[in-house]
Amino acid sequence: MGFFSKDIKTLDDLFVHTLRDIYYAEKQIHKSLPDMVEKATDPKLKQGFERHLGETATHIERIEKVFEMHGVKAKAVHCPAIDGILKEAEEVAGEVDDKQVLDAALIAAAQAVEHYEITRYGTLIAWAEKLGRSDCAAVLQKNLDEEKATDRKLSELGEGRINLAAAE
Amino acid sequence: MGFFSKDIKTLDDLFVHTLRDIYYAEKQIHKSLPDMVEKATDPKLKQGFERHLGETATHIERIEKVFEMHGVKAKAVHCPAIDGILKEAEEVAGEVDDKQVLDAALIAAAQAVEHYEITRYGTLIAWAEKLGRSDCAAVLQKNLDEEKATDRKLSELGEGRINLAAAE
Repeated sequence: MGFFSKDIKTLDDLFVHTLRDIYYAEKQIHKSLPDMVEKATDPKLKQGFERHLGETATHIERIEKVFEMHGVKAKAVHCPAIDGILKEAEEVAGEVDDKQVLDAALIAAAQAVEHYEITRYGTLIAWAEKLGRSDCAAVLQKNLDEEKATDRKLSELGEGRINLAAAE
Repeated sequence: MGFFSKDIKTLDDLFVHTLRDIYYAEKQIHKSLPDMVEKATDPKLKQGFERHLGETATHIERIEKVFEMHGVKAKAVHCPAIDGILKEAEEVAGEVDDKQVLDAALIAAAQAVEHYEITRYGTLIAWAEKLGRSDCAAVLQKNLDEEKATDRKLSELGEGRINLAAAE
C-alpha cells in the first residue's frame, strides 16, 4: 500500500487490509516452518512443527474463503511485523549450537509467531462482528482456536522438556 | 550479535540475549507511545496510552534491575521483530483519515505490541525458573501482568467504542 495515499477510509477497508496482512503472514510462516522442522531436535517438537505446517496450509485456505465470502480478491500485503519476527527467529537459531538450547530458542520463536497471529485474528474477529459478518468471524475463529492450541502446546514443551543439566 | 559467531551456548546465554531483546523493544515502545497518544482521538484511549507510557518506563527500570540481579551489564540488542511491528503500526496509521477508524487501527497496533511483549516475558519467566532464578522471574512477572492488563483494556476499548454507523 502506498505510504502517502489515504487508502483506508472505513472499518471495512481496515478489515480487508488486515486480512491481507495475515494472509501474507501465514504464507511466510508456511515457507519458514520446514526449516524449523529440520532444525528441531526433540521428536515431539519436530512433530508439532510438522503438524502446524499442515494446519497453516488450512489457515491459508480459510483466509481465501473469507476473502471470497466478503467479495474481495485474495491478495497479500507486505507485513513488516512477521518479517521481523521470522528474521529474528533465524538470527537467534543461527547462533545456537547446543541441540537443547536450540530447541528452547525455536520454541520461543514459534511462540512469538503464534502470538502475532493470535492478536491479528482476535482483531479481525472483533471487526468482522462489528461489520455484521459473523459468518467471516466464525471461519477466522477456527484459525484463532488452532493458533491458541499450538501456543499452549509450545508452552508445555518449553516448560517440560529442557534438561537443565545439559542446557545450563 | 554477529551472524556467524556462535554466541549462544547455554540456556543462560539465551536468557540474557532475550532480556536484551525485550530491553530494546521496551525502549522503542517508549519512543513510539507519545506519537500514539497524539494520534488517538478517544479520550479513554489517549489516557490509556499515556498511562502505558508511564508503565513502560517502569518496565525498563525493572529489566535493568533483572540485569543487575543476574550480574550482567544492561545492554540492548537490535530486535527486528518489534521494529517490524512498530513500522507496520506507523504505516497503517498513516493511511487512515477517519478518526474512529484510526482509533481502531491504533488499538490493533498496540495489541500486536502487547502480544509481542507477553510472549517474550512468558518465555523469560519460564527460563528464569529453569535457571533457578525465581527472584528474576518474580520481577519479570510484574511486567507480564501489566502487559496482559493493558491488552485486556485495549480489547474492551476495541470491542466497545467504535460507532459502526460512523466508521463503516
